[in-house]
Amino acid sequence: MNDKLRQLIDSIAQPDGVAASAASAHLDQLTKPPGSLGKLESLAIQLAGITGVDKPEFDRKTVMVMAADHGVCEEGVSAFPAEVTQQMLYNMLSGGAAINVLARHAGADVQVVDVGVNADVSHPSLVNRKVRMGTSNMAKGPAMLRTEAEQAVLAGAEAVAEAVKGGTRLFVTGELGIGNTTASAAVVCALTGLEPEVIVGRGTGVDSAGLTRKIAVVCRALEVNQPDANDALDVLTKVGGLEIAALAGVILGAAAHRCPVVLDGFISGAAALAARAIAPASAAYMLASHASDERGHAAVLRQLKLEPMLHLDMRLGEGTGGALSLHLIDAACRIMREMATFADAGVSDGQGAAQR
Amino acid sequence: MNDKLRQLIDSIAQPDGVAASAASAHLDQLTKPPGSLGKLESLAIQLAGITGVDKPEFDRKTVMVMAADHGVCEEGVSAFPAEVTQQMLYNMLSGGAAINVLARHAGADVQVVDVGVNADVSHPSLVNRKVRMGTSNMAKGPAMLRTEAEQAVLAGAEAVAEAVKGGTRLFVTGELGIGNTTASAAVVCALTGLEPEVIVGRGTGVDSAGLTRKIAVVCRALEVNQPDANDALDVLTKVGGLEIAALAGVILGAAAHRCPVVLDGFISGAAALAARAIAPASAAYMLASHASDERGHAAVLRQLKLEPMLHLDMRLGEGTGGALSLHLIDAACRIMREMATFADAGVSDGQGAAQR
Repeated sequence: MNDKLRQLIDSIAQPDGVAASAASAHLDQLTKPPGSLGKLESLAIQLAGITGVDKPEFDRKTVMVMAADHGVCEEGVSAFPAEVTQQMLYNMLSGGAAINVLARHAGADVQVVDVGVNADVSHPSLVNRKVRMGTSNMAKGPAMLRTEAEQAVLAGAEAVAEAVKGGTRLFVTGELGIGNTTASAAVVCALTGLEPEVIVGRGTGVDSAGLTRKIAVVCRALEVNQPDANDALDVLTKVGGLEIAALAGVILGAAAHRCPVVLDGFISGAAALAARAIAPASAAYMLASHASDERGHAAVLRQLKLEPMLHLDMRLGEGTGGALSLHLIDAACRIMREMATFADAGVSDGQGAAQR
Repeated sequence: MNDKLRQLIDSIAQPDGVAASAASAHLDQLTKPPGSLGKLESLAIQLAGITGVDKPEFDRKTVMVMAADHGVCEEGVSAFPAEVTQQMLYNMLSGGAAINVLARHAGADVQVVDVGVNADVSHPSLVNRKVRMGTSNMAKGPAMLRTEAEQAVLAGAEAVAEAVKGGTRLFVTGELGIGNTTASAAVVCALTGLEPEVIVGRGTGVDSAGLTRKIAVVCRALEVNQPDANDALDVLTKVGGLEIAALAGVILGAAAHRCPVVLDGFISGAAALAARAIAPASAAYMLASHASDERGHAAVLRQLKLEPMLHLDMRLGEGTGGALSLHLIDAACRIMREMATFADAGVSDGQGAAQR
């Protein structure tokens, strides 16, 4: 394995148990029945463990949008033509995409990184880390070389390192790439052994015939390439995508910097499974956001042992579900800092009052 | 029926189908696969129908916290002593309760209305609409008089009318009252015919013995009072609560002013069932927020045909789940106003591209 990648993996630490315990103890002093804020409480405890601060605050948050194209589009797996990747890239760089609106609404930045768009694209706010001009068609052979998969992972991690220098301490995974639900489904199936029939979904909206074709393409890609379930880099290389590999790198990079990383939907979930396989310690830094409407997402979250907070039947990607959940993360942080304790407020805490 | 209440009911109009259709058509022009923003899209359409404006904006939002006490507390149905209602009332008026933190975070106001707290309470920002000093013990007889239930409903509706004068165009239901999950369970069972065993939950956190006692108390209250399932005011009178009746009034008042009303958890759900029974047209103005951890809430939402957006395992009440969902409502509004269309952005809309 690439030396830089090895260093990245080795730099991921365990969360801070002392800070997590302090957060938990504080929550039990607040004027509410114990545990009654549910996932906001478990979130507050996890964030304390991740950051090592019992009442953390995230002033700067960034949605990391990794963009790339997919050779497998030539098999007719998407409801949109492949050119839409570059068209939507410019829309996003102009601030008109859903993720721009929802990131603004959440007070977050959007950082778009080209790791493999199949066109010469340039824009002052686009980060160019292009590894190659899209993947090869995985239905016919490996999507990319192993060195390219490693390079894409590192591109994601390095983009995170840059954002950390700029003050970001919380990340959301986002992506753009026509065809990427197909590659993600193949990655999920390869890593988990789950069947394409239960994982492949409609993506941007293929019809039933398109869905049948998409399932067949994923089966063929797995058959042709025989990815090694015990080697996530082999899986990314053979049936992955450049943005999926880069998102795995975003997750590993966030974990290495003790930053929480909020997972968006299905494609982010595939990247998270790969990141966890590469560095199991990274799992503690992952937060689920929404339950996507894309078929395989629930199975991916079960594999990750994560529970989504939002149920909005969304299937747009880009990081949109992740961005919407930032408000809940900030809410958990504010509860820790701003709520009165039983002692402050002179409220009976109900201890021993159960018989009244 | 009270004349004012009759006028209130008669003033609730159907939503505006033209504005809703315009919103729907606009959503299909935005740079995303059709329907891919899921519930944000149905929310945007509903909000347009409610307000009659295709791209509404809610600058001012208010969480209406109705507070009251419950005579049934003497049966030992709560993990907290009844005095906690007034203690928490002052905590809330001082800004230290969870709802204060979460409303601030959402940019919403909190309006606390005393409709029946069993103590002389006063505070510059407390609205005094006290109907009586808490209810009677419903396990022994009716909780209140029918005229008192009507008065409480009108207190809620009039508090909404005042807030509308102050500029609020969106409401969240909130409440405070030790013992109110017991009364809410009785209201839900009386209106729906569902059994106490499947509706009564742990509230602020009673143990298993407490839960058994609580179920028995609800059964006894229904047996002793024989509320009429076809007369929601009779149900509120006999086994309701002053804050539950007032919340039904908040919902009716919001609907009468063409304002959306966001339902919090189980107690709000009981009030919503009552409001719908009193004025079926009010249902179109209701929005679900979260899936509460309180046992009967899922059944209540099914009865209301509403789907929650947030799954946070919360069971705190006060309006907290409702307040957290305001961010999603604002997000839906911003999507309508700020996202680029396919034509604006020069993006292929995928029509007819399914075979590619």
